[in-house]
Amino acid sequence: MKKIVTVGGGTGSYTVLSGLKTLPDVSLTAIVSMADNGGSTGVLRDELGVLPPGDVRQCLVAMSKHSEIVRELIDYRFTEGKLAGHSFGNILLAALEKVTGSFVEGVEIASEILKVRGKVIPVTREKAELSALLQSGDIVDGVVNVDAADFMHLGLKKIFYKKDVKLNKSARVSIQKADYIIIGPGNFYCSVIPNLIVDGFKNIVAKSKAKIIFPVNLTNKHEHTKNWEAGDYVRNLESYLGRKVDLILINTEKPSKEQIERYKLEEGSGVIVKDDLIKDPRVVRESLISHSFFTYSEADAKQNIRSFIRHDSEKLAKCINKIINK
Amino acid sequence: MKKIVTVGGGTGSYTVLSGLKTLPDVSLTAIVSMADNGGSTGVLRDELGVLPPGDVRQCLVAMSKHSEIVRELIDYRFTEGKLAGHSFGNILLAALEKVTGSFVEGVEIASEILKVRGKVIPVTREKAELSALLQSGDIVDGVVNVDAADFMHLGLKKIFYKKDVKLNKSARVSIQKADYIIIGPGNFYCSVIPNLIVDGFKNIVAKSKAKIIFPVNLTNKHEHTKNWEAGDYVRNLESYLGRKVDLILINTEKPSKEQIERYKLEEGSGVIVKDDLIKDPRVVRESLISHSFFTYSEADAKQNIRSFIRHDSEKLAKCINKIINK
Repeated sequence: MKKIVTVGGGTGSYTVLSGLKTLPDVSLTAIVSMADNGGSTGVLRDELGVLPPGDVRQCLVAMSKHSEIVRELIDYRFTEGKLAGHSFGNILLAALEKVTGSFVEGVEIASEILKVRGKVIPVTREKAELSALLQSGDIVDGVVNVDAADFMHLGLKKIFYKKDVKLNKSARVSIQKADYIIIGPGNFYCSVIPNLIVDGFKNIVAKSKAKIIFPVNLTNKHEHTKNWEAGDYVRNLESYLGRKVDLILINTEKPSKEQIERYKLEEGSGVIVKDDLIKDPRVVRESLISHSFFTYSEADAKQNIRSFIRHDSEKLAKCINKIINK
Repeated sequence: MKKIVTVGGGTGSYTVLSGLKTLPDVSLTAIVSMADNGGSTGVLRDELGVLPPGDVRQCLVAMSKHSEIVRELIDYRFTEGKLAGHSFGNILLAALEKVTGSFVEGVEIASEILKVRGKVIPVTREKAELSALLQSGDIVDGVVNVDAADFMHLGLKKIFYKKDVKLNKSARVSIQKADYIIIGPGNFYCSVIPNLIVDGFKNIVAKSKAKIIFPVNLTNKHEHTKNWEAGDYVRNLESYLGRKVDLILINTEKPSKEQIERYKLEEGSGVIVKDDLIKDPRVVRESLISHSFFTYSEADAKQNIRSFIRHDSEKLAKCINKIINK
């Protein structure tokens, strides 16, 4: 039984986990970013004082073995009345945090209710406010503002937490025991890096014997990573991680013309990440791209236009399965 | 395997079902009133256009074999922000109605999620607005207003639906197959009778071979049934039901002094139902009263002061078990 830990948040983790869930003989743990404060998540966080449920919800849905309708329920977003904008899963996690007195315990109960295969672990038990330090010395606070900030013009010095937050103990234990750690894909500075900068994460990964697998994003984010090539992602990730990654997964198949056109409307040209790591022996090249437009909840898709070009969860899982069974 | 159908709503059904759930060799079906439009239920009904979830929620919690914490979750009521006042279970049922497109199907999925022992069936699939026709010819509309109306002074002619609603087909099938039908206890005109006046209910019960068991309320409702004795409940029930009941369960044990005192503060004197059915051979007399103050969700208890004096679910189940195994 191979122990796989994924690190991320949002739709990137959703995609990886949806695929990995189907593999035999693996034990799955999803470590999830807690930096989100946007949308329904942000409202619940502000009004109820709970930890941000959004990213955890997506992982739970990805790993749930419950019926399709229950997974649809968790992603259902109310459109009317005072509940408008809230996804049901977020409300579930907020209620469970209130009932149990602990977000982490609430996630465990939700996992039980949803028949989750594996574990979903918030990277920290603390309230985490993401900030960005710019080259000018100015600071951008809150993940929504960080997400919108134009680092290509402003210049990013580093991503950090306004107040240090500690690594959740069960996340630490999972990393210690892991055979493989998959970091990303996903919104680089808002979903992936927020895990790596949690106090204690770097240290425990440095000591871990696990092989680190890095599926490189398929597309660049206009404001954050415009014109980045695969090597830029690897180098930036490693600078936050404090060690080298072991395997780099790069997609070899082009998106369809329609995917590119729809994407361009949102993000402009130069969105497809180029493979510049020609001689790097760590690179595994495979077709990893999805050609369908929406396979997960439409409500979330509407909030995340980047899903026009994304990984295919089956292809990704197949590729990872080959690696772990070599 | 004896087939038991309960008919009611609210905390009365909760109490009966909590006890019956523990009996071996019975198949349980709860038929639940859909007339509620108060509180969280009313807001969801108005804002989202869903059927009223409150009474169904209580039955689901009563019959759930899931862990205590999950049952607590379903009854959890938010106290802050825009979700304030809503119980989580109501939101669950509203979301399920939206996702499945049908309240009845939503209840089935909720039953699966909550590992419900038996079935919970809304008495009708239609929007049901309860009204009361007064002796004066005036009409009171909506269950909240009916609940508050002082029939002792105004005089009640009958309880009816503003627009006829039909019996849900699966409720019909359950009644046809039933060995025992337990009607009540509960708020007589707002939880119990609203089932009996659904179009088709009377007819199918008339044809049923099931024995009808009627646990008489322990207390009178000041505005509706002040100074009623057991016989008044039986006669009024039978007039709506169109047939005789087979067994009448009457509690023999007095509430404690403290229970009576706390009750009097709310309801005035004369609240305890007297047993005037001295020579009726259908009466089964047992101690059926609870001496604990709150065994179900505190949030609901706060909304229902009548729970100071209520049936003990174990005693009630034991009594019913004796009857069905005679």
